[in-house]
Amino acid sequence: MRVTILGVGLIGGSVGLAARERLGAHVTGYDPDATATAAGLEVGALDVAADDLAGAAGDADLVVVSAPVGRITGVVRAALEHTGAETIVTDVGSAKRGVVDAVDDDRFIAGHPLAGAETSGARHARADLFDGAPWYLTPTATTSGVHFERLARFLSGIGARPQAIDAATHDRLMASVSHLPHVIANVMVAQAAQALGGDGSLPATGPSFRDATRVAGANTAMWTDIYLANRDALIDQLDDAVDRLRTVRAALVAGDAAAIATWNDGARSDREALLQVGLAGGEGAARELRVLVTNRPGIVAEIALALGRAGININDMTLSPSADQRTGEVALWVAAAQAGRASELVAGLGLQVEGDT
Amino acid sequence: MRVTILGVGLIGGSVGLAARERLGAHVTGYDPDATATAAGLEVGALDVAADDLAGAAGDADLVVVSAPVGRITGVVRAALEHTGAETIVTDVGSAKRGVVDAVDDDRFIAGHPLAGAETSGARHARADLFDGAPWYLTPTATTSGVHFERLARFLSGIGARPQAIDAATHDRLMASVSHLPHVIANVMVAQAAQALGGDGSLPATGPSFRDATRVAGANTAMWTDIYLANRDALIDQLDDAVDRLRTVRAALVAGDAAAIATWNDGARSDREALLQVGLAGGEGAARELRVLVTNRPGIVAEIALALGRAGININDMTLSPSADQRTGEVALWVAAAQAGRASELVAGLGLQVEGDT
Repeated sequence: MRVTILGVGLIGGSVGLAARERLGAHVTGYDPDATATAAGLEVGALDVAADDLAGAAGDADLVVVSAPVGRITGVVRAALEHTGAETIVTDVGSAKRGVVDAVDDDRFIAGHPLAGAETSGARHARADLFDGAPWYLTPTATTSGVHFERLARFLSGIGARPQAIDAATHDRLMASVSHLPHVIANVMVAQAAQALGGDGSLPATGPSFRDATRVAGANTAMWTDIYLANRDALIDQLDDAVDRLRTVRAALVAGDAAAIATWNDGARSDREALLQVGLAGGEGAARELRVLVTNRPGIVAEIALALGRAGININDMTLSPSADQRTGEVALWVAAAQAGRASELVAGLGLQVEGDT
Repeated sequence: MRVTILGVGLIGGSVGLAARERLGAHVTGYDPDATATAAGLEVGALDVAADDLAGAAGDADLVVVSAPVGRITGVVRAALEHTGAETIVTDVGSAKRGVVDAVDDDRFIAGHPLAGAETSGARHARADLFDGAPWYLTPTATTSGVHFERLARFLSGIGARPQAIDAATHDRLMASVSHLPHVIANVMVAQAAQALGGDGSLPATGPSFRDATRVAGANTAMWTDIYLANRDALIDQLDDAVDRLRTVRAALVAGDAAAIATWNDGARSDREALLQVGLAGGEGAARELRVLVTNRPGIVAEIALALGRAGININDMTLSPSADQRTGEVALWVAAAQAGRASELVAGLGLQVEGDT
């Protein structure tokens, strides 16, 4: 398998390293910054450094675009232009509607791994960076099912847990669980520095403050791009946060202990619900479901999205077209505990499911 | 040494355990909930469980009030009423102006350890809970220097780093680095649950979200008290947070990448400044400073506050009155790197400093 990495940083380098070590892939890298590809070669993330994008992408089976968010659409288009009908192109940006709306090509499936580290650059690449990490994919109605399956299998092979989600849900989700928390961490450190500072003398802060603001002041170039790429969803989240802070403020002004207690209890329930979900993935035995499908465009994406929206992780997926290419069978492996629900959802799409659920 | 703990929970129990193990203290406990004192006895935090507050406090050298924040002032007053002229009374509440304004007695010195755990109750008491933790004390002009010194030494003896701070600064500080982050964690989990939920199916969230919201939905009874006890400082912080979120929102609406980049860079500097301070405490060799003082009321508090405001931790302090009780010498041990600054600050109070800085 030939993999091309466009943009050799922490994520691109880690994809290359894992693909070489775990899948025996031949990995070519290109980065406009030659020191990045040099670092990629040095840590073993790349077999070859190409001189330009066209040369890097040419004969790849899979192109992973790990360029800065602001440049992804351009690089994805260039990659599609320089590759053939069987090449899959994907990206790793943290906002998805922009590139999904801009690129309409059945070879492109946008993606986003929920992985990272406090370091950056290919020099810090790790083959295990994606182990157990959700890797969102945002297939559309035009996505090729065969390509989706191959990409999902590749991602499982490098340790990630691919999960389909539609682009708008993804962006709302990221605005809520990543972009807003980053904004708020920045706001809190600025307030604390002002509250404590003055003459540069700051009393000690506690460990909970450190945890809550760990992501403050993250890489400026990267995060400016991310905030702007997802700005409408982020603005909605900011407005919601301001409304909620005002509600708390009103309860404080009124000295309304009962309202504060109810609000705090609600937060505890919310946190428990979120943690349960975070902990649920990947547990227990996997169960196979077989789905008979007509080989119409988008059917695999439809199934993947239906399960993804319900929080059901597809551990593995294969697509076996029949001889006449008009029907086929999709085999899905999902956690045993979720198999019943998965069957219902697939049946709800009007498809026939077989499986020992 | 006889120590009385009023309110036998995680903090009170840990004080008792550390005082018994490390200082050989005889520890008496009282709690209106008899299961709390039973737990305190069982884990070795107490020598004796008293039947009532008066019996517990009677012959103590030091009374530590670790009651819920909303009840602290009443318990402190009762403790002062039932103890003699040489007994020191302190508390551990997270908001300080209320009790400091309400209690005017030279035997009372309000305090607040920056320590805790995700567990609560005396059953989870740990002798090492305060090791290296800042323990704020808020002496006033009427605070007895001798009492302040004895209390600070006791706290050092159980592992904490006592640091003087005035009550208003303390409350502003806590509103910024603790109470606001708790409110915001609650807000963020509620938003995430709403953004992701609907039918109870939540896609996976990332580790940074989990870190940022670790304190969401903390103990409702305790935190309702804390929010209300410090509500004006917290309201100021909420207003400041809302203003800052609006500024970010405006930059997003305008698509102003330069403004977002500058703001993010500022947050990084702020975070680094906060981390440096957090990491600076307790490093390097200690240096002794000797300060000649007239034995006037409040002089020890003045020195402690001047250093505390400048972020200088007093590792140890002794007060040696002269024979006529009209002058004396305060010996301070501070980190070598801070000794020069400490000398300047003390000299700035019009006092004579000796020391090998």
